[in-house]
Amino acid sequence: MDQKQPSSLARYLDGEFWEIKDAFRDAISKCDLFQSSSYELTLDQSRDLTAERLYHILRLPFMKEHLQNQLKEKQNGFINKSWGITELICSADMATGVKLGVVCGLYGGAVNNLGSPEQKMKWYLPVSELQFTGMFAMTERGHGSNVRGILTEARYDQYSQEFIIHTPSEDAQKMYIGNAMKGNYAAVFAQLIINAESQGPHCFIVPIRDQDGVMWPGVTTIDMKHKEGLNGVDNGILIFNNVRIPRENLLGKFGSVSAEGLYSSPVVSKSRRFNAMLAALTPTRLGLTVQAMAAMKLGLVIAVRYSHSRRQFGPKDQEEVKIIEHQTQSLRLMPHLAAALALTFTTRYAAGLMDDALCQGQDLQSNRALQALVAGLKAYSTWENLACLQDCRECTGGMGFMMENRIPSLKCDSDVFVTFEGDNMVMLQVVVRELLAQHTKQMGNNLVMGLIRNWTSSVSDSLRTSFLGFSVDKVGDLMFLLKALSYRERVLQRSLASRLYTKIEKNKDEFFTAWNACLHHVITLAMAHIHKVTLEQFALAIQECHIKEDHAVLTKFCLLHGTSLVYQERAWYLEHNYLTAGTSRQIRSQVLNPFQEGISMHFSVFSVT
Amino acid sequence: MDQKQPSSLARYLDGEFWEIKDAFRDAISKCDLFQSSSYELTLDQSRDLTAERLYHILRLPFMKEHLQNQLKEKQNGFINKSWGITELICSADMATGVKLGVVCGLYGGAVNNLGSPEQKMKWYLPVSELQFTGMFAMTERGHGSNVRGILTEARYDQYSQEFIIHTPSEDAQKMYIGNAMKGNYAAVFAQLIINAESQGPHCFIVPIRDQDGVMWPGVTTIDMKHKEGLNGVDNGILIFNNVRIPRENLLGKFGSVSAEGLYSSPVVSKSRRFNAMLAALTPTRLGLTVQAMAAMKLGLVIAVRYSHSRRQFGPKDQEEVKIIEHQTQSLRLMPHLAAALALTFTTRYAAGLMDDALCQGQDLQSNRALQALVAGLKAYSTWENLACLQDCRECTGGMGFMMENRIPSLKCDSDVFVTFEGDNMVMLQVVVRELLAQHTKQMGNNLVMGLIRNWTSSVSDSLRTSFLGFSVDKVGDLMFLLKALSYRERVLQRSLASRLYTKIEKNKDEFFTAWNACLHHVITLAMAHIHKVTLEQFALAIQECHIKEDHAVLTKFCLLHGTSLVYQERAWYLEHNYLTAGTSRQIRSQVLNPFQEGISMHFSVFSVT
Repeated sequence: MDQKQPSSLARYLDGEFWEIKDAFRDAISKCDLFQSSSYELTLDQSRDLTAERLYHILRLPFMKEHLQNQLKEKQNGFINKSWGITELICSADMATGVKLGVVCGLYGGAVNNLGSPEQKMKWYLPVSELQFTGMFAMTERGHGSNVRGILTEARYDQYSQEFIIHTPSEDAQKMYIGNAMKGNYAAVFAQLIINAESQGPHCFIVPIRDQDGVMWPGVTTIDMKHKEGLNGVDNGILIFNNVRIPRENLLGKFGSVSAEGLYSSPVVSKSRRFNAMLAALTPTRLGLTVQAMAAMKLGLVIAVRYSHSRRQFGPKDQEEVKIIEHQTQSLRLMPHLAAALALTFTTRYAAGLMDDALCQGQDLQSNRALQALVAGLKAYSTWENLACLQDCRECTGGMGFMMENRIPSLKCDSDVFVTFEGDNMVMLQVVVRELLAQHTKQMGNNLVMGLIRNWTSSVSDSLRTSFLGFSVDKVGDLMFLLKALSYRERVLQRSLASRLYTKIEKNKDEFFTAWNACLHHVITLAMAHIHKVTLEQFALAIQECHIKEDHAVLTKFCLLHGTSLVYQERAWYLEHNYLTAGTSRQIRSQVLNPFQEGISMHFSVFSVT
Repeated sequence: MDQKQPSSLARYLDGEFWEIKDAFRDAISKCDLFQSSSYELTLDQSRDLTAERLYHILRLPFMKEHLQNQLKEKQNGFINKSWGITELICSADMATGVKLGVVCGLYGGAVNNLGSPEQKMKWYLPVSELQFTGMFAMTERGHGSNVRGILTEARYDQYSQEFIIHTPSEDAQKMYIGNAMKGNYAAVFAQLIINAESQGPHCFIVPIRDQDGVMWPGVTTIDMKHKEGLNGVDNGILIFNNVRIPRENLLGKFGSVSAEGLYSSPVVSKSRRFNAMLAALTPTRLGLTVQAMAAMKLGLVIAVRYSHSRRQFGPKDQEEVKIIEHQTQSLRLMPHLAAALALTFTTRYAAGLMDDALCQGQDLQSNRALQALVAGLKAYSTWENLACLQDCRECTGGMGFMMENRIPSLKCDSDVFVTFEGDNMVMLQVVVRELLAQHTKQMGNNLVMGLIRNWTSSVSDSLRTSFLGFSVDKVGDLMFLLKALSYRERVLQRSLASRLYTKIEKNKDEFFTAWNACLHHVITLAMAHIHKVTLEQFALAIQECHIKEDHAVLTKFCLLHGTSLVYQERAWYLEHNYLTAGTSRQIRSQVLNPFQEGISMHFSVFSVT
């Protein structure tokens, strides 16, 4: 495919901000820094190259303009545009994309979402002008998933009007901090303590080192050195020994301290206050999905192209066949391609929701559906990416093991995506927490009554959409697939609510114990929810595609995506009599079938740099 | 656990050759070469370190003695002992284990299994005395999986009584060859051509470079450089430009050429002849399973220990709980531990079968069950290893992404195991080919009649063992699990035979086309077969364990292994009415249950160096 003349489908997949994506494609393909690989470099060389690449990108005029827009309120489409840019940079080099994410998404996100207008001008504008860079310091040695329990302290000293940032124990060391060995300022989360009373975690801007590398008094950084991947990103440990910072360095949107040491916050509850801060950082979380998509699309392009050129085995005395024609090869790759398309549309939808909410001045925390969607997308996309890249690796044989063919580094770089910015297991629990909260709201504020009323209505509801009850839909019709995924989510949600109700209200189990005993159920429900949303968004995106051939191709992949999702969970559908043995076998043959209809020929849908 | 005083269970898992394993543990733990890590080294440094480690091991007196035993015929227990040693070395350093496998297993296997007694003394004895090392050159750029189609030529020149080894095209280049940049001799597979007629692939010893690194005339090696893992192993490309080697360098067990250019072989058919050569190399294939086991056991030890020390989340106002107590954490790790145990016993069984066969002078090719077992074990164990290590990586969070914690390098090193020495997809087809051949034999030599007779008897047979037909076994009893796995294998085998029969005999489809249309079915059957064998062997191994506590622990894990295998495939059982919705749910709760019974406490079953 001539990359200068993208197909209408490639343009549709690029979406509204295709122009800036093309501008980046052009800029990156012309830049010498991106022509060489980094796997043969030493750790230091690799980090230096990543830094140079990052600076090159930050210096691009349209990038600078974009970053300065970040300072403004209510920028229409800002988030969607940002993720378009991120995806492009990640396909060029994942470490550069992640480092950009640290500096602009995480550090920048903290300053812009938790800070006042003055703080944004002071702590973020200079980043867009390459005067300094920042890092984001939330995770501690002792608390990665359970960040509410972080131990770093920020005591207010009224006399000097300073905060004293301190690491009270080894478990309180800030760990895995990206840009720790090169960055100048850190957005540090610490327990705000005034007169020996904690107001919960707040975010502070702490100087780490100046432009000449001179460390700020009391700050120590320790290099974490070699990782499985992303070795171009300098991760390190931060230790604070009574580090003094001005009172103004507390990012004050959700809580501030007067010169006299009086604390005030628009959110009274400590717990809600921290939730509000985390919710304000939600846009950043969607970045992980974008990074994972970049990796899987690139892996798929490499693996599918290879499968169309490599030949092995074949009919006796005839030319060997292309390996894409081996039934299992298509079966391994095509569902991932379908999932990548579904993720493209779902991510765009989620970013659009955020853009709309922010433009309308809504707070993101109260948007339960959006919170569930973003947390679920993070988990689903990063796992789907790993499964996809593993299949790409295996489907390209020995070639897929050679670093020069990029699949290994994509795998190694993106492996940590399932862990950082919220471990997937934790993310999926967030999904269910939001779903249950939403559910309770629908049913009035009484959780128990809500559960019971909802539960008793479940039998008739299951008949209403069950395939066995109403067999007007054909297995494999999009409507059947959408109903099946939606049914599964609802039944899982009700049965979970019922189990939790029994354990907590009847048996008087402690909440954590009850929740933990249902954890597998929780995870299953969360995945069912996100599966459903991806298929819905894929289906909606098809409706909006008005070019006939593209519409036809996307429809095939949408059906494949839905069929694969139902196929994966057919045991559950059989257990719930939603599928008969016969219809279940039909689903299987549909998963095996599309390849006879040439779906595997559509391998150039993504434009890559 | 004090490693100097292994528990009775650890000793039982070490098996018959625990003494030599302990000797290696001791030798490796005392050797400075194994104390440092290699991930921070350059490619050359890493390769040099691996070579030094290999030489250190080859120099150990008990290793030298073992290698020289390889030259003798009928060494009782030789294969089992070899794999015990291999496992230990692989847990110390995978690259060293793989390089040892190349030199002694692949190159040594070729010489010892395809060569005459004189050839063994000439080409292998010096390896045990560190005079030179070898490599194994089968795979070509154009033919990795379909090795029958290799293009390298060995033309006999009667005048000089030499073979002329030649690479006729780019596709004929020998690729991914381990030890290519350091080794001295290669066991090269090439089409033997006499008077312009090919006798099919044969194996030749070709000098590559002398001890001073001077290349043999006409030989070129190209460094393949960086890979995802195993960077301590020097993989390269071999190109032969009319390389002349003496007539005696043809390994002659399955075919030789007289001085006058007359070809003779104990096997008339070209196709059977190559099969016989490949079968003679079967013992080497089992090595992959051993290497994969070493990786997964080490990964599990690290991940399970970490899960018992790390705390995160917990009941309100109480200490956080150990993450092993999170339901999903146990659920992710414990089935892998069960699988690792099953593989330990199954591998020992397979090696024992080979040892017995070789001691009795049987040829391995005609042992269909053994061929199926070894091919299936290779695929199952290497995939199971990757799934296991991925879970270990994720279950150890950010720590599992740091190279110093070993899980990343285990993952990267062992990723290629699913590809090399026979791609898993190809291996699983070998399993089914052997199963069908065995099946045909049972039914007499007429494939078609055999299939029909067998097919018609299937209904009554399915009733005979179906859970629904005879509900005397409780779901979760070992007998129930064994019957279920066996039933699945038999039904899949019959239905595959029937489908192939219809396509080939009735519809007159070309064999490749028919087979390819059933490929998903083929793969499914092969996995079902190997699942069944692993559970059978686990069950047998329990019977032979006479220490009560160990017997009890192993029984729990055996049940977990069987339950997990049935649980994975419960959709199939539901489709075939072997499980009801209710029994299927029972299986699920059994998979979730063992953790309430403290199965997760048994985390120190493996002795590691």
